[in-house]
Amino acid sequence: MTTTYLNDVDLPTVGALVQAVQEDPDKGQTTWKSEVTWGGAFRTTAQSRDLAPVAFDEPPGLGGTNTAPNPVEQLLGALGSCLVIGYAANASVAGIELKDLRIELEGDLDLQTFLGLGDGNAGFSSIGAKVHIEADAEDEAIQALHEKVIATSPVGHCLSRSVPLEVSLA
Amino acid sequence: MTTTYLNDVDLPTVGALVQAVQEDPDKGQTTWKSEVTWGGAFRTTAQSRDLAPVAFDEPPGLGGTNTAPNPVEQLLGALGSCLVIGYAANASVAGIELKDLRIELEGDLDLQTFLGLGDGNAGFSSIGAKVHIEADAEDEAIQALHEKVIATSPVGHCLSRSVPLEVSLA
Repeated sequence: MTTTYLNDVDLPTVGALVQAVQEDPDKGQTTWKSEVTWGGAFRTTAQSRDLAPVAFDEPPGLGGTNTAPNPVEQLLGALGSCLVIGYAANASVAGIELKDLRIELEGDLDLQTFLGLGDGNAGFSSIGAKVHIEADAEDEAIQALHEKVIATSPVGHCLSRSVPLEVSLA
Repeated sequence: MTTTYLNDVDLPTVGALVQAVQEDPDKGQTTWKSEVTWGGAFRTTAQSRDLAPVAFDEPPGLGGTNTAPNPVEQLLGALGSCLVIGYAANASVAGIELKDLRIELEGDLDLQTFLGLGDGNAGFSSIGAKVHIEADAEDEAIQALHEKVIATSPVGHCLSRSVPLEVSLA
């Protein structure tokens, strides 16, 4: 097992987790939760575990009070953060030192469906992400890292594939 | 145009937006952005517009420092917030006063793909959301509201449908 830190990543813990799930796949079965509470108008807070709540709102042009990013902006943030964590984890395991890592994301969205003016796609028609990475490695190693991250991103897969949703009135 | 507030929702602004997009669908074409910056280990921040950055991290069992929810938890938070905003908007337009609104979300995820131990789905196998709603309305009106929200949720559609992703090294 690796016994050092790289990129401030706790490699012993990551290594122990990989080994545990490899030996017993059931240990890879996880459940994640969030509880979202309405705060009036378009303000909400989302809380997971005992962590500080995260605020959401809408911009003034959409009738919000602009106190926080809106859900589709935070969806882009979740995708970018998932990718960044993937680069950090896989680079560290591969012995690549990261100097800088930043991702610019954007997505186009037609408001017509959300506003009740059509039956089409209410979500992003597409999402683009530009990855800025500075690392102590050859281009070939960075390309291999990139391909591995794309192939293994939880939020990436949630978006690029169809996830069964069951939303019910309690 | 409606000229009052309900549920603290700015109905004149929402009404004006719906009218503007109905008259000129091009006004419904929007682009949303987020810039995600690595902060060492598995810590990131996501920033949209000039709003305060939102923090992400991973729990200790996954090698993180547990300072904030992780990307898949925030994905659930974004879905729940999108649905809550949908209920608030559509209830207000329909003249329904909301007394309380809260959504519990959870999703199951097999870590094997993220950990590089398999080629399967790295994302949620499914997501469940229980909507707790107290409102001054008949059950039939609440059910109609619920169906409208499900059919028009931007984040809901991003998850239930496949979104084309283009992630490239800059």
